[in-house]
Amino acid sequence: MSHLPDTHVAVASLSRFVCAVLHDLGMSDEHAGTAAWAIVEADLRGQRGHGVARLPSYAAALATGDINPRPELRVQQDTPVSALVDGDLGLGHVVVMRAVETAIEKASSIGIGWVGTRRSTHAGAGGVYTGAVVERGFIACYLAVSDMNFMAPWGGTQRLLGTNPIAVAVPAGPGPHFELDMATAVASWAKVATAAGTGAPLPMGWVMDPEGLPLTDPHRVSEGSLVPIGEHKGYGLSLAVGLIAGVLNGAAFGRDVDAPASASGGIGQTILVVRPDLFRPLDEFTRDVDRHLDDLRRSAPRPGFAPVRTPGSRIPTDRQRMLAAGIPLAATLLEELRGLASAKIAQLLEQ
Amino acid sequence: MSHLPDTHVAVASLSRFVCAVLHDLGMSDEHAGTAAWAIVEADLRGQRGHGVARLPSYAAALATGDINPRPELRVQQDTPVSALVDGDLGLGHVVVMRAVETAIEKASSIGIGWVGTRRSTHAGAGGVYTGAVVERGFIACYLAVSDMNFMAPWGGTQRLLGTNPIAVAVPAGPGPHFELDMATAVASWAKVATAAGTGAPLPMGWVMDPEGLPLTDPHRVSEGSLVPIGEHKGYGLSLAVGLIAGVLNGAAFGRDVDAPASASGGIGQTILVVRPDLFRPLDEFTRDVDRHLDDLRRSAPRPGFAPVRTPGSRIPTDRQRMLAAGIPLAATLLEELRGLASAKIAQLLEQ
Repeated sequence: MSHLPDTHVAVASLSRFVCAVLHDLGMSDEHAGTAAWAIVEADLRGQRGHGVARLPSYAAALATGDINPRPELRVQQDTPVSALVDGDLGLGHVVVMRAVETAIEKASSIGIGWVGTRRSTHAGAGGVYTGAVVERGFIACYLAVSDMNFMAPWGGTQRLLGTNPIAVAVPAGPGPHFELDMATAVASWAKVATAAGTGAPLPMGWVMDPEGLPLTDPHRVSEGSLVPIGEHKGYGLSLAVGLIAGVLNGAAFGRDVDAPASASGGIGQTILVVRPDLFRPLDEFTRDVDRHLDDLRRSAPRPGFAPVRTPGSRIPTDRQRMLAAGIPLAATLLEELRGLASAKIAQLLEQ
Repeated sequence: MSHLPDTHVAVASLSRFVCAVLHDLGMSDEHAGTAAWAIVEADLRGQRGHGVARLPSYAAALATGDINPRPELRVQQDTPVSALVDGDLGLGHVVVMRAVETAIEKASSIGIGWVGTRRSTHAGAGGVYTGAVVERGFIACYLAVSDMNFMAPWGGTQRLLGTNPIAVAVPAGPGPHFELDMATAVASWAKVATAAGTGAPLPMGWVMDPEGLPLTDPHRVSEGSLVPIGEHKGYGLSLAVGLIAGVLNGAAFGRDVDAPASASGGIGQTILVVRPDLFRPLDEFTRDVDRHLDDLRRSAPRPGFAPVRTPGSRIPTDRQRMLAAGIPLAATLLEELRGLASAKIAQLLEQ
């Protein structure tokens, strides 16, 4: 781990850098722009593990063709309420944003839009997509099948499941929206890998060994599987997400996930968009959501604890801070990013 | 706790008994029949805490008028994809079944049906409703706001949240469907109360005290709050369910839940029904779901453990056993049930 301080890079410069790197790897201007927005947006939302930190792995997959830089996205199975986006193994961010736009169109017209993806790839943070929807005054739910299996069924030992995240956003106002974005495991694999990298014992309850006992030895992480939240309950949630966002969309799930994307046919995601005014006038609804979220935030914290938060309550202030001061990048990450680009493009990171 | 063996009562007799009790309390034949089916169905699905064990509390609320025995159910805000059922404070089972029928109609016609309820009351086990939908070959998701708050926000101490359950069902075949029905707390309040009643220490991790420390003293349970699954994650899920099934439907949530139903305006539930053939041919989909569930069930169990299960995998065999041998009722419950009815009606329990 580096001990150098983080470098702050201006949001606009970082976005242009990501866009230029993706464009250089063969993506169209439009797709590179969409992906750059979604990638930097993850950082702006505080989900650093799903932001520019992932660019090196996306770049490697684009270079080998595991991710198709020039996908032809096709909207299939189109009905007034639903559709399926065939992602042609393009970068997940681009595929999911097409699904989001399609779902918003349907919800705008009939009230609900449910759009799945297949032949998609890793799409970063689900909160980016539900965030784009909630800004429009809609409710959003996003489900995704992980592209790697790190979780065993409860009571079992074979890693047949991903952490299959769930994101839900509900509009509020004038306070921050409700924005939940969570994996169905106690800790994501990225979090476990980062912690193991320090060489210190892992916290109890993150990983278990094949006997179901806590595994805290950072050198034995690869033998373990992630602990689902609420044991059999998180197992059930992960499975529900996998059946809906994977199997229903004709995308990979279970043992099929472990094949390379090109062989497995890619992963799947689902975005559901609902117009609140199907049920109540929007302004009445958002005010009421605000009141309840405020009740929670003003409620008594545990003695000695910080004030109670609601999911997403820090996003607006975090975003403002980063828009003003730039996005903090660790020295090692900055070095890796520089290595992805020509000197001219890397120049953007100095701004 | 009684040490007498359970008495097995035939399913048909128990259903007729429940129906007769509800009818005697003023419910119409139709509503009493629907409610009796839903109540006994919870027992048949192994969710004994939500079956006939709840009849005494429903009967008391019907007698005081906290539950309206003669509700006029109204379908409001009707669109091709959505509706809101005003339950007129009738028994939740009847209100939710109207929502389920309405959602199935919409899904049959346009592919998706999202129906909320307001001015509803306790509706028992969510799996009963998603089970009724999945039998028709649809995917179902059910969200409900609990009628009591036993959970504090993560980092807080005030009980402002219910365990707000989530049920999801996905059709499979020929094997058992995927049927998940879970509270967003590690243990439901009913489970905690039952365990505390034995006088033995509670398992760690079920309840925490206002400092956030484990509370295991069965005599101090009322000071504690339920631990959400995955800590802040279960808090977020409970809140998401509350905003959607409560606030969006114009039903009680948060501090408003603690008022009596008649003052608070009742609780809310949401049922979402989706036709799988929007995305894939049904038989192809159910076969594929079956294959993946089977992969999990055949995967290696932990050493010394029973075979891996999938959510709902025991329902068909449990049901068959109870249809043949009757539903087991504890002696104390049987006694309570007898007390609800005239001698003639109570007679049904002897069959």
